[in-house]
Amino acid sequence: MPMSIKDILDGYRQGSISAKVAEDMLRMDYLEKIGTDVLFDVSRQQRTGIPEIVYASSKDRDTVVEIALAHRDRGLLISKAPDDYWNAVDAAIPGGCIRNAKAKTIFVGRRPEAVGRPIGIMTAGTSDIPVAEEAKEMAAAMGVRTVSFYDLGVAGMHRMTEPMKKLIEADVCCIIAVAGMEGAFPTVVSSLSTVPVIGVPTSTGYGFGGDGEAALMCMLQTCSPGLSVVNVDNGIGAGAMASMIAKQCNRRNE
Amino acid sequence: MPMSIKDILDGYRQGSISAKVAEDMLRMDYLEKIGTDVLFDVSRQQRTGIPEIVYASSKDRDTVVEIALAHRDRGLLISKAPDDYWNAVDAAIPGGCIRNAKAKTIFVGRRPEAVGRPIGIMTAGTSDIPVAEEAKEMAAAMGVRTVSFYDLGVAGMHRMTEPMKKLIEADVCCIIAVAGMEGAFPTVVSSLSTVPVIGVPTSTGYGFGGDGEAALMCMLQTCSPGLSVVNVDNGIGAGAMASMIAKQCNRRNE
Amino acid sequence: MPMSIKDILDGYRQGSISAKVAEDMLRMDYLEKIGTDVLFDVSRQQRTGIPEIVYASSKDRDTVVEIALAHRDRGLLISKAPDDYWNAVDAAIPGGCIRNAKAKTIFVGRRPEAVGRPIGIMTAGTSDIPVAEEAKEMAAAMGVRTVSFYDLGVAGMHRMTEPMKKLIEADVCCIIAVAGMEGAFPTVVSSLSTVPVIGVPTSTGYGFGGDGEAALMCMLQTCSPGLSVVNVDNGIGAGAMASMIAKQCNRRNE
Amino acid sequence: MPMSIKDILDGYRQGSISAKVAEDMLRMDYLEKIGTDVLFDVSRQQRTGIPEIVYASSKDRDTVVEIALAHRDRGLLISKAPDDYWNAVDAAIPGGCIRNAKAKTIFVGRRPEAVGRPIGIMTAGTSDIPVAEEAKEMAAAMGVRTVSFYDLGVAGMHRMTEPMKKLIEADVCCIIAVAGMEGAFPTVVSSLSTVPVIGVPTSTGYGFGGDGEAALMCMLQTCSPGLSVVNVDNGIGAGAMASMIAKQCNRRNE
Amino acid sequence: MPMSIKDILDGYRQGSISAKVAEDMLRMDYLEKIGTDVLFDVSRQQRTGIPEIVYASSKDRDTVVEIALAHRDRGLLISKAPDDYWNAVDAAIPGGCIRNAKAKTIFVGRRPEAVGRPIGIMTAGTSDIPVAEEAKEMAAAMGVRTVSFYDLGVAGMHRMTEPMKKLIEADVCCIIAVAGMEGAFPTVVSSLSTVPVIGVPTSTGYGFGGDGEAALMCMLQTCSPGLSVVNVDNGIGAGAMASMIAKQCNRRNE
Amino acid sequence: MPMSIKDILDGYRQGSISAKVAEDMLRMDYLEKIGTDVLFDVSRQQRTGIPEIVYASSKDRDTVVEIALAHRDRGLLISKAPDDYWNAVDAAIPGGCIRNAKAKTIFVGRRPEAVGRPIGIMTAGTSDIPVAEEAKEMAAAMGVRTVSFYDLGVAGMHRMTEPMKKLIEADVCCIIAVAGMEGAFPTVVSSLSTVPVIGVPTSTGYGFGGDGEAALMCMLQTCSPGLSVVNVDNGIGAGAMASMIAKQCNRRNE
Amino acid sequence: MPMSIKDILDGYRQGSISAKVAEDMLRMDYLEKIGTDVLFDVSRQQRTGIPEIVYASSKDRDTVVEIALAHRDRGLLISKAPDDYWNAVDAAIPGGCIRNAKAKTIFVGRRPEAVGRPIGIMTAGTSDIPVAEEAKEMAAAMGVRTVSFYDLGVAGMHRMTEPMKKLIEADVCCIIAVAGMEGAFPTVVSSLSTVPVIGVPTSTGYGFGGDGEAALMCMLQTCSPGLSVVNVDNGIGAGAMASMIAKQCNRRNE
Amino acid sequence: MPMSIKDILDGYRQGSISAKVAEDMLRMDYLEKIGTDVLFDVSRQQRTGIPEIVYASSKDRDTVVEIALAHRDRGLLISKAPDDYWNAVDAAIPGGCIRNAKAKTIFVGRRPEAVGRPIGIMTAGTSDIPVAEEAKEMAAAMGVRTVSFYDLGVAGMHRMTEPMKKLIEADVCCIIAVAGMEGAFPTVVSSLSTVPVIGVPTSTGYGFGGDGEAALMCMLQTCSPGLSVVNVDNGIGAGAMASMIAKQCNRRNE
Repeated sequence: MPMSIKDILDGYRQGSISAKVAEDMLRMDYLEKIGTDVLFDVSRQQRTGIPEIVYASSKDRDTVVEIALAHRDRGLLISKAPDDYWNAVDAAIPGGCIRNAKAKTIFVGRRPEAVGRPIGIMTAGTSDIPVAEEAKEMAAAMGVRTVSFYDLGVAGMHRMTEPMKKLIEADVCCIIAVAGMEGAFPTVVSSLSTVPVIGVPTSTGYGFGGDGEAALMCMLQTCSPGLSVVNVDNGIGAGAMASMIAKQCNRRNE
Repeated sequence: MPMSIKDILDGYRQGSISAKVAEDMLRMDYLEKIGTDVLFDVSRQQRTGIPEIVYASSKDRDTVVEIALAHRDRGLLISKAPDDYWNAVDAAIPGGCIRNAKAKTIFVGRRPEAVGRPIGIMTAGTSDIPVAEEAKEMAAAMGVRTVSFYDLGVAGMHRMTEPMKKLIEADVCCIIAVAGMEGAFPTVVSSLSTVPVIGVPTSTGYGFGGDGEAALMCMLQTCSPGLSVVNVDNGIGAGAMASMIAKQCNRRNE
Repeated sequence: MPMSIKDILDGYRQGSISAKVAEDMLRMDYLEKIGTDVLFDVSRQQRTGIPEIVYASSKDRDTVVEIALAHRDRGLLISKAPDDYWNAVDAAIPGGCIRNAKAKTIFVGRRPEAVGRPIGIMTAGTSDIPVAEEAKEMAAAMGVRTVSFYDLGVAGMHRMTEPMKKLIEADVCCIIAVAGMEGAFPTVVSSLSTVPVIGVPTSTGYGFGGDGEAALMCMLQTCSPGLSVVNVDNGIGAGAMASMIAKQCNRRNE
Repeated sequence: MPMSIKDILDGYRQGSISAKVAEDMLRMDYLEKIGTDVLFDVSRQQRTGIPEIVYASSKDRDTVVEIALAHRDRGLLISKAPDDYWNAVDAAIPGGCIRNAKAKTIFVGRRPEAVGRPIGIMTAGTSDIPVAEEAKEMAAAMGVRTVSFYDLGVAGMHRMTEPMKKLIEADVCCIIAVAGMEGAFPTVVSSLSTVPVIGVPTSTGYGFGGDGEAALMCMLQTCSPGLSVVNVDNGIGAGAMASMIAKQCNRRNE
Repeated sequence: MPMSIKDILDGYRQGSISAKVAEDMLRMDYLEKIGTDVLFDVSRQQRTGIPEIVYASSKDRDTVVEIALAHRDRGLLISKAPDDYWNAVDAAIPGGCIRNAKAKTIFVGRRPEAVGRPIGIMTAGTSDIPVAEEAKEMAAAMGVRTVSFYDLGVAGMHRMTEPMKKLIEADVCCIIAVAGMEGAFPTVVSSLSTVPVIGVPTSTGYGFGGDGEAALMCMLQTCSPGLSVVNVDNGIGAGAMASMIAKQCNRRNE
Repeated sequence: MPMSIKDILDGYRQGSISAKVAEDMLRMDYLEKIGTDVLFDVSRQQRTGIPEIVYASSKDRDTVVEIALAHRDRGLLISKAPDDYWNAVDAAIPGGCIRNAKAKTIFVGRRPEAVGRPIGIMTAGTSDIPVAEEAKEMAAAMGVRTVSFYDLGVAGMHRMTEPMKKLIEADVCCIIAVAGMEGAFPTVVSSLSTVPVIGVPTSTGYGFGGDGEAALMCMLQTCSPGLSVVNVDNGIGAGAMASMIAKQCNRRNE
Repeated sequence: MPMSIKDILDGYRQGSISAKVAEDMLRMDYLEKIGTDVLFDVSRQQRTGIPEIVYASSKDRDTVVEIALAHRDRGLLISKAPDDYWNAVDAAIPGGCIRNAKAKTIFVGRRPEAVGRPIGIMTAGTSDIPVAEEAKEMAAAMGVRTVSFYDLGVAGMHRMTEPMKKLIEADVCCIIAVAGMEGAFPTVVSSLSTVPVIGVPTSTGYGFGGDGEAALMCMLQTCSPGLSVVNVDNGIGAGAMASMIAKQCNRRNE
Repeated sequence: MPMSIKDILDGYRQGSISAKVAEDMLRMDYLEKIGTDVLFDVSRQQRTGIPEIVYASSKDRDTVVEIALAHRDRGLLISKAPDDYWNAVDAAIPGGCIRNAKAKTIFVGRRPEAVGRPIGIMTAGTSDIPVAEEAKEMAAAMGVRTVSFYDLGVAGMHRMTEPMKKLIEADVCCIIAVAGMEGAFPTVVSSLSTVPVIGVPTSTGYGFGGDGEAALMCMLQTCSPGLSVVNVDNGIGAGAMASMIAKQCNRRNE
């Protein structure tokens, strides 16, 4: 267990630590760690409320269970979790996990209470719902409220007006708009709203550009100011970005 | 100058041509040309009204003038013509050409009278106008009427309703929708209309997908049925497709 | 159940609704819906005859059956349906569905009678037939007649002349040309016909460009005017575009 | 000049307008416009403070001057303006424009006073400065304050700590991080901060991925939550997104 | 059964066919077919010796068996045939098929005797052998002899000298060089030989460019004159090209 | 100047060279060079008749003149030569060069007499002619005869029949088919001929795939056996490949 | 069994071999082999210590066992080996193989003792470990020591300082840095170290650029001098490169 | 000017600095900077000898001169410098700069003496020389010796043997191999040498893959172990990587 700065200073004053040793301790080994804390802000996670995130599909089940156990007291969001992972994690931490089967997420630990202005979540189609739900789980893990409306289409834009009004009434501070295919939905959402919009392309669609590339390109090329983008199918990223915006907007309330 | 089928038949009957020679003439040399006419329908152009088209920017000015002179009696549409080509062609065929400076086209010859139900032409932005005008010139060259509205936007969709109504009043049989950037405009047009729509992506925009690829992908991925696409900046192709649709719709009137 | 415009006007005249309330009702809540109807034309579907379309492969079987039940009276085309979906849908709506096993489509509801000038459908190879059949089902769902010829090749273009003649005799108003590999087939069809052609690239082929990209590029680069394109394997889109052209051509007959 | 809803209601009550006509006026022509206002929110621009934006490099100088004159009272941001455009616009509206030569922007009209929590703007290299300045101008046009630090590098991350501290002291509500080459800079910024970060890839760099594609991909693939992206070189888009976040955060102050 | 040209000529001379009817028969219906034969050269296949080719993997087993039965007398090469197709085809045409398990080909019918100068076939690695064997089967189906050497490497170029010498001794008229990975092998082969070389990229390798794209690009960029290319994994195409070269070289011998 | 093998052998027999030295000379230094000659066949160029080739556009004029002077006795083909290079090279070697202004080539030295069966060269459009001429110059430099027909189109396939017949009459041993845009031309040529075809995509066309990529993909995906490809605009490569085929076919005549 | 150079020299001196035969033997057949040895350095492998490498996943199990048996005395590294290959190879050569289950490698033969300055191996995430282990096995096969630290992140850079210090203490001569996702890790490693770094992108991640392309691009675009790259997932290549650097650094010690 | 750690410690012991202030100074402000030095190793540059590098082509001339003046005492390498930059920099720092016109580099300051084992530099063609020269200048700036051979070809591999021998005699510790077109050259160099090879693709070539992408892919796909890659045209990066390898190898000599 390393000495604190105060300890070193005192040891030096008292003569139990030489000037050279004190300097070296501060400089070489010990300071480094302190400096790291200061510089790299290991408390960032706590302050921003971003949980540890594990992308399950590139890890085997046992490893995921092990990580879950290690984080049971801190908050862990497991994403893209195959169905049988739920049973294993739930068996290891009975009653300690929250599953969202559509989102394929498992939350381990206790979620903070959700407060303040919420974020809105909208999808163009039904195939986009899992990605939207993933964003919702991320927000929940960060203590941010959500209001969501799904399958609102673009070809039938009249389906969008009622949800848009409800989002305005809920005083959302930003909107996550999820869409595959041609990806025009976030642009339309953005043109109808006065809050910032985060577009999430999904890998829905087929043929040329059907792996989400058309949707991504479309959102990046948008002519509607006030829209930024995360990667294809990245509900986690959209949820984190929106929640950090919400936290800035809600700061005064806390 | 080759003998006609009738000549050969007669020559054979009269004995001036042997059976073998007659058969060979029919089969090998002469029939081939006839057969070609039948098969490949060299009169297609006349019947469809598609003029000869010359893509000027890959040819030098003298060659274009030469081609213009050769087609002065038949109808020729010169596309993507640099400014100085107009002077040269106009000097060679004074009073015999029609220029569209925006479209960068020169029409050589006499245009057919435009009749029947028109085609609608709409653009999302002002940068898309040259491509729209190119389509308009192609329609004019094929004797098809056009009604056009430009710079209708997507972000401000309210600008689209008045033009849409005017197109409906004009009883257009199809609509050409031209757009760059994210290319969502033709999808919106299609969702608001009951006639087939031809989308034309333009090379407007910058960054990822900015050479028209985003717009093209977006149109190909459209979730609005009743929309097909031509290549980036291909106003000529869109004009031809729309005009051929118009000609089928107008057939009974002719 | 919201009041009609007439009800509001009358309530206002009779004094049961104040001017402010009448104005607000018209403006804020109620008009919005009316306005939406006017603007976004929810009756578009009925007038154009485009059925609801469900892309089955991104939805689970139960969801598809549920959607089928909800649309049994209105007309629904289920595309890319796995084999076992048929049994489930057919069991839920016995005698109420039409299956096309090659096209992998299920039509739910009653199809309109097919009338007027038909559309032609041609394929270059046998692998392109499922996409062509999908287009055929879409046309049938929209009440448009079809005439189709498959496996006509490009390398052996002599196989195309007889079908081309038959299409002309059938007085088709446009042609859908389906091809994978190098995708030159629609260009050849277009050069031989006087009606507009809709090219459909398919994901047949392998190696560089073998996922339909070569075919798509080839069709977009075509030098034959009168050809437009839909996305790779998008039989539904081609069928819709062609049927909308047919409906414009047949309008006078209805 | 169309009648107001109130006028129609009154005319109807007074009998000067028949029920049928009143209904039609509301429904067909007049309501449409009202409905459009309600639905599409033409006042969005005023409320969000987003100025009209003109992408100058795809328009000729005279057109830009014309647009500038038309918007002199409302606020217009001209982006990517060639040098000689400034002279022309400034001559047309003497004293009425603000130029940023690095950003290649011209602002026409009066800028709102900048208030509330600012946004931070950082660049990795000197080549990224024009894009950062464009974002700064967009924020200024929207009445949002900015604090900026440029040329902070990635290879020498020690250059980043002082600016990061200054941004925290300035209480920025979000950070725009601009970078070309490998585009790792926004990820590092995000890992060091507790506010949302908007990454802007720039077209700096050469060879494979050197047109901004590497930077864009890198930002989309980021493993640091709380980072979203706009298109390559899109300073305007980043400025708008950040300013809209700032406006939500500052709302209580207004 | 249509009349021959001779029949028509005779019928005309004898008066049983009028001039008009003879002319029409020749021109409209009948000539078309004859003309087609002449133009499109349906006998091309026989003269060039190219068999009918069926790409099995995009067809079901029953269809392939059916096609095999239909071509049993003419020569059919089935490529990329799954293992169970062999049993089915062999059962349907016992003793009438030749299988190459490595090449995944089945030849149906009788192969012409292989004569004349052979073609050389070389591969860089062992993974390239199936594609090389496919080329060999194509040559065998066309009556062309082959000499092949496999797994000759590039990193160890000394393994190439002995095979090169053997190919020269065998007096090959051209060489097929098959390689995946970086695809440099055909360039090296070409630089060591005096006959034309046909490069075949294979989809061996992984990571960036690993689907055969690196190999294809490398061969297209070759700085060694005398090398042309077919598509990735296209052993059939390489075999056909090489065999047609061989047939031109061997013509005098036949 | 190194000793010949014979010299070493004699020196060893005569005792002027020790066994060790002779062995070393043969093995280490000297044999290497000899071995190189044997292995790498430095006389390949003479035997195949491939001239030295210089790609001028990546070299400055003085360097090209210098190279020209160095090769004046051996045969050098300068490709893609800017116009002013001709003057410089011609001034340096008066009367010793042959220019092809269309092909942008300069041949330095004496060309071999062209003998034997020729190669055919065809282009789809007029923009493809420079690439075709480049191929022609390469053949001329290698002593191979050519017969060429340009601007034969695809949309108007009837223009191809006469040239095809002339090529057959000229007994060409292979055909170079040059095309941009959709690149279907070589496939059609191949389907009409019985000799091997070398496709050359050109960078004609615009929009998606317009840099020659569509044409290249189309040719690689061809369904017509007997077609191989060189890189975009690579007339030199096509000319070399075709000439090497011709040399194999003509071998017996020499 | 060919004669040695000495034998030929002696035979010539003794007259049992004529001058012509001796010259020919040296030149044509025999020298070729010797020359090859000299030129192509078949002993390269021994001197560099690179083992024979077999990429198992493109070969069937029996072939791999066969190759293993053939190389049991020389050293063979089997990579990307499916699990059941281990059993088969281990059964064939009991006790003669070394397995690394994470790396999916099997080493056949005896590994050289590892000596000299080691190479460092670091990974950004846990998903990158198999690729890192593959590199480690390659180094072991070449007799090079390794020191490795895994899962060091980028978002939490403070985790990197301790391992960096340990690598410096271990006096590594170069570092292999393995990372997927955005691939910024090797750049950071390079900026913190004074030894050359070899970046290995991995195919971790999803969406746009998720197949390792983002990571590859990022590393190629790095602004930190002293970093070079191998292909995606190519642990073998990185291990070989690093080991060859180590061997040059350690040369004096051997 | 901040206090040193020693000063703070002494001030604390002497009581002129309170415990709280000393701790804060160490922790918050001051330590941060020290910590940064320790962590981020600002002396890395001096120890590795990497000069400051400025990529001139994305900066205007005045900025470059300014940077040059600022670094005149420390060592600065200006790359891709337009011709007129030389005059400006040379005028500002007369006699203080070293130009390499081929490499388009300017070195400002004094170069360290070059010592130890050199690095080899080879190019496939003459167009690759500028990139090779850039690498050479980077090595010179880092005090590393170079031996270079240019224009060694691949098609004529016999030209490579003599230079390879010379590099071995010079005892190079690694080789930079520069090549465009198909990029096979570094693979061949690697297969012939026992030292690590750094491949540099160049943007030489045209058509598909001609911007250096073919060469890059080819090098990444190499089957020769001991080859790593830097980005297209990145001579600086190759020079730095090679020099850092050399410095590790030469360490014992210093």
